Amino acid sequence: MSINFDKAATTRLKEEVLNEMLPYLNEFYANASSIYSPAQKSKEKIESSRMKISSALGCKPSEIYFTSGGTESDNWAIKGIADSLREKGNHIITSKIEHHAILNSAYFLEERGYRVTYLNVDIDGFISLKELEDSICDETILISTMLANNEIGTIEPIEEIGKIAKEKNVIYHVDAVQALGNLPIDLKNLDVDLMSFSGHKINGPAGVGVLYIKDKTKITPLLHGGAQEKSKRAGTENVAGIIGMGKAVELAVENINGKIDYISKMRNKLIENLLSIDGVTLNGSLENRLPGNVNVSIEGVDSQEMLIFLDRKDICASSGSACNTGSIKPSHVLKALGLSDELAKDCLRLTLDSENTLEEVEEVSKEIKKIIKILRK
Amino acid sequence: MSINFDKAATTRLKEEVLNEMLPYLNEFYANASSIYSPAQKSKEKIESSRMKISSALGCKPSEIYFTSGGTESDNWAIKGIADSLREKGNHIITSKIEHHAILNSAYFLEERGYRVTYLNVDIDGFISLKELEDSICDETILISTMLANNEIGTIEPIEEIGKIAKEKNVIYHVDAVQALGNLPIDLKNLDVDLMSFSGHKINGPAGVGVLYIKDKTKITPLLHGGAQEKSKRAGTENVAGIIGMGKAVELAVENINGKIDYISKMRNKLIENLLSIDGVTLNGSLENRLPGNVNVSIEGVDSQEMLIFLDRKDICASSGSACNTGSIKPSHVLKALGLSDELAKDCLRLTLDSENTLEEVEEVSKEIKKIIKILRK
Ligand SMILES: Cc1ncc(COP(=O)(O)O)c(C=O)c1O
Ligand SMILES: Cc1ncc(COP(=O)(O)O)c(C=O)c1O
Repeated sequence: MSINFDKAATTRLKEEVLNEMLPYLNEFYANASSIYSPAQKSKEKIESSRMKISSALGCKPSEIYFTSGGTESDNWAIKGIADSLREKGNHIITSKIEHHAILNSAYFLEERGYRVTYLNVDIDGFISLKELEDSICDETILISTMLANNEIGTIEPIEEIGKIAKEKNVIYHVDAVQALGNLPIDLKNLDVDLMSFSGHKINGPAGVGVLYIKDKTKITPLLHGGAQEKSKRAGTENVAGIIGMGKAVELAVENINGKIDYISKMRNKLIENLLSIDGVTLNGSLENRLPGNVNVSIEGVDSQEMLIFLDRKDICASSGSACNTGSIKPSHVLKALGLSDELAKDCLRLTLDSENTLEEVEEVSKEIKKIIKILRK
Repeated sequence: MSINFDKAATTRLKEEVLNEMLPYLNEFYANASSIYSPAQKSKEKIESSRMKISSALGCKPSEIYFTSGGTESDNWAIKGIADSLREKGNHIITSKIEHHAILNSAYFLEERGYRVTYLNVDIDGFISLKELEDSICDETILISTMLANNEIGTIEPIEEIGKIAKEKNVIYHVDAVQALGNLPIDLKNLDVDLMSFSGHKINGPAGVGVLYIKDKTKITPLLHGGAQEKSKRAGTENVAGIIGMGKAVELAVENINGKIDYISKMRNKLIENLLSIDGVTLNGSLENRLPGNVNVSIEGVDSQEMLIFLDRKDICASSGSACNTGSIKPSHVLKALGLSDELAKDCLRLTLDSENTLEEVEEVSKEIKKIIKILRK
């Protein structure tokens, strides 16, 4: 029996979600943009998915745009706003601990004449509101920060950042890919102009995501072509994927407080167990942390070796973000916290969701203790 | 029993394709970039899909990149080459009858300082090689033409175009979204640098596509982020979609000549039936035409009314490309052929694949005759 403690990398597609998708992978296959009756059914399903998502997030259906995933949503937000406001200014603010979908888009924009400020974070991974305010200038057109970090789980103060952005009249984008389903999100009460989400992180399908774009926000399309998504995001609709995304979001926000309780209890136990081992330190904040995230540095124990030993015990874990696996560079997030290269390379990320159990926590803790002993010899 | 004569808009996901996808929508859900054993399975499946596609197309696996669909492949090709060669030149050549994924990308590039030549086509929809040659200048960095047109089925001379492009040292992109599975494609024998494909047009899943990029071609990513697809196309892999794409391509090229025979016979019969009606003319070439494409103008019979009447008889058809349905503008393709606004608005597109039958052809012909009588009264 294998144990999956790498839910931040991806999650299982829920049976209920797949069941809603299946008819649209089978009998019903009309192009939603066609005018005959079978196509109307596809179109209605897309709009009903948009409604589910908007009501889960506290925004209007017209503010929900379907994309191919979190990466596309992030790229579109950053590049689309940078392009549409290029005559207003060329300065963008983000942080040093963003996902590479943001950082690599920002590096690209830098090569094309934009100026980017990468905000520092403190030892727990929080950006400083003061540094943010000081960075804003007349040329600033966009601020982009994540809601919760994918490696260390730190929850950023997006309410306060949004207030600052609004006051200074700067567009604010939030990468909420890791947050949805793990934290309550209510767009009504946030000064956020754009927010990114991804299906496969919330027990939905891979290859589908959402970008929330507040009404009246001007943004250049990333994908030009047909008139889909109000001519803002071209491409024949992935009807089954969109249906799955709607159902997954609906389920993700259902009983969210109950889930947070359940998952944080496991996380706290896991942290307690690991910190009781010599030379183990927690990375990231203890209080403002995703309910399912544990990230520790284990002195003298290289991540890659730890992961191989865990794999032999059928335990899935990670050293950081999956999409940079194989890279020998220490995590940019842990470096930004101020960790030494050594401690950054000795990290272990364990991420849980509501399908995990307390027994698994005990089992994994036990195995990690054993492996540390072996590897430290 | 409904009849679907709109296969150029989208196709049914084949059961065999879905069956290969299902395990990866169910039990197996690892992020292909993770390092533990379950992830290796996903990675292997992705690479085996890449192999299937490359062997079907006559190229190397390393030249196959997965995208979210034909629209993304087209956008990436055009914008990615335009960006990567921006220091070499700013001139792009395409044609007036391209899909909007190409045309709207080209318009966007024009607004950002590129110069675009839109080649004319003759009455059958062919571009002129002479005009192409005359258009190439020192600044030309990219030629993009489609292999087969989605509205009128005209097959462009991509072999000859490729030779010219190669001789002049210009990158050549081909949109083959409508061609795959309907025409043999052998990249080994073509001077083509990039080629776009889409899953849902070949009985594969929606939301997945391919861009063929010849080895050593420098292209700027459209999606920046993680290291997926050799750092050229970021985003957590849609494993099930990619598996489906591989299987769909494999099936699409299987017995292609038999399929072409079967489908062209139906098409020829349908054309014969329709042209026997007064005031009906064929749009596009009769010889160099997709096996499953029929496009006629019916004097005095508005497309939209025809489609509504056909829908009442459970017959799916179209007036052109699905993604511009609802638009009241006459088709840019038919206008480029030189049709009057009137005849362009009186068009009817019927597109068949190997799941259609000769009985359906007769049935649809009969219904169209009846509807024409009613609408002309
Ligand atoms: C914070 C964050 N942003 C963006 C992404 C990218 O989303 P996707 O995997 O859907 O491309 C991820 C996951 O990889 C993520 O964790
Ligand atoms: C010729 C052509 N190119 C590109 C596309 C776009 O592909 P997709 O539907 O996968 O976005 C289509 C179909 O709509 C097409 O017919």
